[in-house]
Amino acid sequence: MLLLTTLADMKAWITARRKEGKKIGLVPTMGYLHQGHMALVTSAKRDCDAVVLSIFVNPLQFGQGEDYEVYPRDLKRDSQLAQEAGVDVIFAPTVPEMYPRGKQKTFVEVEKLTERLCGASRPGHFRGVTTVVTKLFNIITPDYAYFGQKDAQQVAVIRRMAEDLNMNVQIEVLPIVREADGLALSSRNVYLLGTERESARVLYQALEKAQQEIAQGEKDASMLLKVMTRMIEQCDKAKIDYIEIVDAFTMEPIQKLEGSCLIAMAVYIGKTRLIDNVLVEV
Amino acid sequence: MLLLTTLADMKAWITARRKEGKKIGLVPTMGYLHQGHMALVTSAKRDCDAVVLSIFVNPLQFGQGEDYEVYPRDLKRDSQLAQEAGVDVIFAPTVPEMYPRGKQKTFVEVEKLTERLCGASRPGHFRGVTTVVTKLFNIITPDYAYFGQKDAQQVAVIRRMAEDLNMNVQIEVLPIVREADGLALSSRNVYLLGTERESARVLYQALEKAQQEIAQGEKDASMLLKVMTRMIEQCDKAKIDYIEIVDAFTMEPIQKLEGSCLIAMAVYIGKTRLIDNVLVEV
Repeated sequence: MLLLTTLADMKAWITARRKEGKKIGLVPTMGYLHQGHMALVTSAKRDCDAVVLSIFVNPLQFGQGEDYEVYPRDLKRDSQLAQEAGVDVIFAPTVPEMYPRGKQKTFVEVEKLTERLCGASRPGHFRGVTTVVTKLFNIITPDYAYFGQKDAQQVAVIRRMAEDLNMNVQIEVLPIVREADGLALSSRNVYLLGTERESARVLYQALEKAQQEIAQGEKDASMLLKVMTRMIEQCDKAKIDYIEIVDAFTMEPIQKLEGSCLIAMAVYIGKTRLIDNVLVEV
Repeated sequence: MLLLTTLADMKAWITARRKEGKKIGLVPTMGYLHQGHMALVTSAKRDCDAVVLSIFVNPLQFGQGEDYEVYPRDLKRDSQLAQEAGVDVIFAPTVPEMYPRGKQKTFVEVEKLTERLCGASRPGHFRGVTTVVTKLFNIITPDYAYFGQKDAQQVAVIRRMAEDLNMNVQIEVLPIVREADGLALSSRNVYLLGTERESARVLYQALEKAQQEIAQGEKDASMLLKVMTRMIEQCDKAKIDYIEIVDAFTMEPIQKLEGSCLIAMAVYIGKTRLIDNVLVEV
């Protein structure tokens, strides 16, 4: 496995693979890899001849007062995991390599879909995501790119961006990978201290409860939101950022469940902001 | 020469050329071709194995009350000119083909460089330009793309966009082509009625005057602007939208001429808004 850190090296490698007619898969990450990322790699290995895993903690997608500085980083451990999973190249550029002229002046923005949920809590976040993903797509020119359903809104936004801008990449989305007790895997789970880890179960417990209600015929979004809110509020350490039920493609809130619905939430456990969601087909 | 109108046909043609290892040049236009466009084609023919000329009057880059509806269109005449110039494909998609889902939700924006000059007079214009050019770049994946210096701010914006987003295309810029009396060629010159055509000479006359002053040692931007403004104001039919002297790359106004300076103006002749500029190396 190669570790490349410059655009020039990355582009040269891609050009060589293109000449060999290889299908290229990209798994864009911020590193501190977990089994969720590994599931993306496994899928990429199946579809493609060469797999690039990018590791870049993108300053553009972090807001003021967010965790950019302390976001966990461990390239050595990541390299080991990536190698074991059969990644061909880790692309780990520096910030000046990605934003060489100081402040980036060009941005890719998706409207409407970014207004609610994490878009409302984290202004500018999705603009940072779509801009860096566009850059990575242009650098690596992947045939396929892999994203986790854990970031459900990001998935909807990137799909829409790729369609709207006629990007030559197929977006593949893989299900959330969870711990045995239901907690969705996240690099940020490392922030959970002591009993917070147990409290963090409440996100998926609430989502499971909603799914049970839906299985029993409940279709009223406000009823479901009430049940979930009550459950989470019973947990001392939990503070709700948002819980919403939205159309899975447009991210518009829905009153009565129908079609592809996304139940999504962001909840603080202590100081750690966790997100989780389930996709429900009604 | 082929005339293609769908994305599918265009992409299939590109894929076939790529398999042949052909270098592709793109000349993006809004049609109603003139010798300025033809100079772009000539240059593309020289650099590339296959030349695509796109014709698309892009609604996204026209503001309310601008000339989108009446912008001159003549595909038959354009096809003849393109064929004679050796264009391989005209790509002339319909609006629904380019914006299939109604309102486009994804936009590419370049900040700062778009704030002044035409960006100030035409809010949203450059966002429309950068978005459609990104789409065309993704559809056609050109190795080279050709733009005219007549749209000097557009050139600066697109160059910056291509760099900032790591686009895999070389931007080539060709000088303004002028009529014998100095009027810069523009599809919009067709709007000029009767004596307006003669009045339209005043734009380049003012720019020439400024160049003479600079040749004689004048470096003070406000002095030059004063001289040009006075000249244009003497013309009954002319109404200045803006005259500015800016850094040719950042589009920031400059007081004392130094380096690559752009003297740019937009002037209404009757109801027709014309733009012109000269690049001055000091």
